Amino acid sequence: MSKTRIIVAGPRGRMGLEAVKLVANEEDFELVAAIDRKYDGYIVKDIDGMPSLDAPVYTDVEACFEAVEADVLIDLTIPEVGYKHSRLALEYGIRPVVGTTGFTKDQLNELQQLAEGKGLGIIIAPNFAVGAVLMMQFAKMAAKYFPDVEIIERHHDQKLDAPSGTAAKTAELIQEVRHEKKQGHENETETIEGARGADVDGMRIHSVRLPGLVAHQEVMFGASGQTLTIKHDSYNRESFMSGVKLCVDEVQKIDTLVYGLENLLQ
Amino acid sequence: MSKTRIIVAGPRGRMGLEAVKLVANEEDFELVAAIDRKYDGYIVKDIDGMPSLDAPVYTDVEACFEAVEADVLIDLTIPEVGYKHSRLALEYGIRPVVGTTGFTKDQLNELQQLAEGKGLGIIIAPNFAVGAVLMMQFAKMAAKYFPDVEIIERHHDQKLDAPSGTAAKTAELIQEVRHEKKQGHENETETIEGARGADVDGMRIHSVRLPGLVAHQEVMFGASGQTLTIKHDSYNRESFMSGVKLCVDEVQKIDTLVYGLENLLQ
Amino acid sequence: MSKTRIIVAGPRGRMGLEAVKLVANEEDFELVAAIDRKYDGYIVKDIDGMPSLDAPVYTDVEACFEAVEADVLIDLTIPEVGYKHSRLALEYGIRPVVGTTGFTKDQLNELQQLAEGKGLGIIIAPNFAVGAVLMMQFAKMAAKYFPDVEIIERHHDQKLDAPSGTAAKTAELIQEVRHEKKQGHENETETIEGARGADVDGMRIHSVRLPGLVAHQEVMFGASGQTLTIKHDSYNRESFMSGVKLCVDEVQKIDTLVYGLENLLQ
Amino acid sequence: MSKTRIIVAGPRGRMGLEAVKLVANEEDFELVAAIDRKYDGYIVKDIDGMPSLDAPVYTDVEACFEAVEADVLIDLTIPEVGYKHSRLALEYGIRPVVGTTGFTKDQLNELQQLAEGKGLGIIIAPNFAVGAVLMMQFAKMAAKYFPDVEIIERHHDQKLDAPSGTAAKTAELIQEVRHEKKQGHENETETIEGARGADVDGMRIHSVRLPGLVAHQEVMFGASGQTLTIKHDSYNRESFMSGVKLCVDEVQKIDTLVYGLENLLQ
Repeated sequence: MSKTRIIVAGPRGRMGLEAVKLVANEEDFELVAAIDRKYDGYIVKDIDGMPSLDAPVYTDVEACFEAVEADVLIDLTIPEVGYKHSRLALEYGIRPVVGTTGFTKDQLNELQQLAEGKGLGIIIAPNFAVGAVLMMQFAKMAAKYFPDVEIIERHHDQKLDAPSGTAAKTAELIQEVRHEKKQGHENETETIEGARGADVDGMRIHSVRLPGLVAHQEVMFGASGQTLTIKHDSYNRESFMSGVKLCVDEVQKIDTLVYGLENLLQ
Repeated sequence: MSKTRIIVAGPRGRMGLEAVKLVANEEDFELVAAIDRKYDGYIVKDIDGMPSLDAPVYTDVEACFEAVEADVLIDLTIPEVGYKHSRLALEYGIRPVVGTTGFTKDQLNELQQLAEGKGLGIIIAPNFAVGAVLMMQFAKMAAKYFPDVEIIERHHDQKLDAPSGTAAKTAELIQEVRHEKKQGHENETETIEGARGADVDGMRIHSVRLPGLVAHQEVMFGASGQTLTIKHDSYNRESFMSGVKLCVDEVQKIDTLVYGLENLLQ
Repeated sequence: MSKTRIIVAGPRGRMGLEAVKLVANEEDFELVAAIDRKYDGYIVKDIDGMPSLDAPVYTDVEACFEAVEADVLIDLTIPEVGYKHSRLALEYGIRPVVGTTGFTKDQLNELQQLAEGKGLGIIIAPNFAVGAVLMMQFAKMAAKYFPDVEIIERHHDQKLDAPSGTAAKTAELIQEVRHEKKQGHENETETIEGARGADVDGMRIHSVRLPGLVAHQEVMFGASGQTLTIKHDSYNRESFMSGVKLCVDEVQKIDTLVYGLENLLQ
Repeated sequence: MSKTRIIVAGPRGRMGLEAVKLVANEEDFELVAAIDRKYDGYIVKDIDGMPSLDAPVYTDVEACFEAVEADVLIDLTIPEVGYKHSRLALEYGIRPVVGTTGFTKDQLNELQQLAEGKGLGIIIAPNFAVGAVLMMQFAKMAAKYFPDVEIIERHHDQKLDAPSGTAAKTAELIQEVRHEKKQGHENETETIEGARGADVDGMRIHSVRLPGLVAHQEVMFGASGQTLTIKHDSYNRESFMSGVKLCVDEVQKIDTLVYGLENLLQ
């Protein structure tokens, strides 16, 4: 079987670097080019910190697609750039796997029509952590049967916002299947303010911040005599890479646009 | 809205007693009779330990179904008895919710045909704990993406067998989607025998037994940089009752046989 | 070896009933009398819900101590009563194990002098759950080395106050060794109010309330690259009984007053 | 206040490099020299991967101690070398903090006498992770009151041995206070071999191995109605550094040999 030929756009970003390493380490993957704002004409291994790969670096996207035969574009740049790259890639018959948020509805519609017209797949995934996406899906499924739920998320103490984006997103997904319901005793009181956490339609979110922690979340459901807990622990950025790999494999099997890893995992 | 009229068969067993209590506590439920090997002609509240309900007790099933108008039969007896009760109930237009295992294929087929002929629902559920059933389902779903998995189950120290039936069942469900794979380092060694737990196709099960514990299980998946854990804690027998209630509600909406709570929860 | 002869005061309260059961179940213990506001002249087994024990019931404490030879008084009444019982018990050479709070300093001093004068032990313990007391002690010890700490306590949803008394007490013990310190990022913000929990000198307490839960607390410490967690789960009232048993054993070895289980456990 | 002047021996090892970084990052610490098998005459920042520090590198230990004024030697070499370094350091008035195991009794005695003769402190610590050492201490303390205990340790799947060294050491410490006792039901049976884990005097150790995990251990105690769990999670090597820092601070306050961090933490 021939290898999947891959172009990585944005190879020097935190995620991009991990993606280049992923391609370097996977036997079935081959890096055929990188697209970068700088370093036009270099080869990848000449850029500081990059794995020892001989793929050429391009600054001009079209020049890259003209010169290099590729199956998949992994785009880890920024939304406006990702949109342009994706359009062009589809026109050149290359299937995009895009890791950015912020596309407009119009852009998504246009990309979908383009993909379907060409019979090509494109995957846009704001979150590549398969485990986190499964946690959110399971939480949404469980909430149908267990309306009492609290979210406890734990992160390192350098995090600025509380609750975390993943916790907010989880609560949002649960809201789709759960009716508003005040949890706890109807006369409960906080003797110290904030003890019961953040209130989202009656469910509660608690944000723990401690040095040493990385990124952890548990979603806990309670019912008479039992609790059900779904917990995701992310220890480092490598956790995103199994999702990128999954998308590279899947984008070659589909002929439309899929938005969000949750729509790829049944 | 009128109440669901319920007959409980086997009211003096551990599960049966909980079911009678459930019916007594649910506003929408009404106990219209109980079926018991003894106490024919008594009323429920005269039996030691029963809630204060006025429903009559029958030893003869047919006499019960002749005399009493009911919507649902909750049967918590034993397989051979449950089979007879279910057949007869369906003939009398009563929908059975049965909490026993051990039906033969022929019996299941016969009950299904009878139910469909009458346009009635029947649910047979070996495990009524909704949380445990969801845990097993989620574990099976996650195993598609994360082939590395270990099960840690914890029970009180009076339990005789290890691993637990739920752990064995979970492993069986995972096996349906996971190819055999030896986990851990290929050269790993146990310096004390048994440290790595029970081996099922390369996945591992660990059985913790301590006084104080009730019935707990976590299914832990690992992948590069992340872990996903699904955990169910059962604190007492009440945990089964939310499943019984769900079945009573659902059995009135279907017109065929459903085997296993997992086929009721999407 | 002869059995420890025990009098239980307050046998019909929740804790008292557990204590009577404990004495009934322990081979080395013997119930020689019970002290109750009612039922004078009855024997224990004639009171509804009591174990089948033949010990006599007294309403008059002095009459009880006159008539019955005993080694230990387990007092699970209320503070003012517990104080009177303890004084009298010491005068009769009986060692008290008292499970109430609310003694005044003067009362404690007087009981201590009385105990030491007689060469007898007396233990007053507001919390008999050995595991909970150890959790608090360990938390206090760990806080010396890890000043970053958050408390997550979880209880059933019928609990009225948040945070729990045990969480507040734990924070208080930690405060004895930890200097005030704001935790988390100095610019952290709550996008939903309450997410970061209750603030006690900069450490945070989170109160989870869900049906199914009983009484659980974890104290989590974080430092560079590591976390240390101390967790206590209480599943039912039996958890107090190992502490009562410990006190009955220890009170016979000491000749002074000990206040709090933590001063008994080294 | 003047800074603590520190020499690091073994700066290119995994632990040594972390120690150099620690010294670089702590305001109160100053690196005055490094001792290395190679690179004699270099300065630290010239060695690949080292922080940008100007301290000189020595291959000859005595030459180093002659030339450089220092307060503390952090030795992260190997036992035989660590022994020689420590002896010489004490003779030069420098207090050693040594992170190796394998000293003989005679060597320890000799170092202790030398230290006490000079009125100098020396700390030898096989494990610098303060959290892990506290976990072991707390486990030993809890085992006095709760004889039923199981250890569940979890590591990445590249670990070769099971159970882990920390789990074995924890069991050893518990054995000092716990009498041999077969746990679980006396008639319990394993339907799959190994389910009940490794048996150490009747207590059980379970070793979980999964990709994504780093190094985690929980020690779980059970008693009637309650469990007490002590858990340590190590996410990366930085976790050792708080222990090294603690030792550097403490070694300047003592005038004898202390073996093991547990003897430093009260």
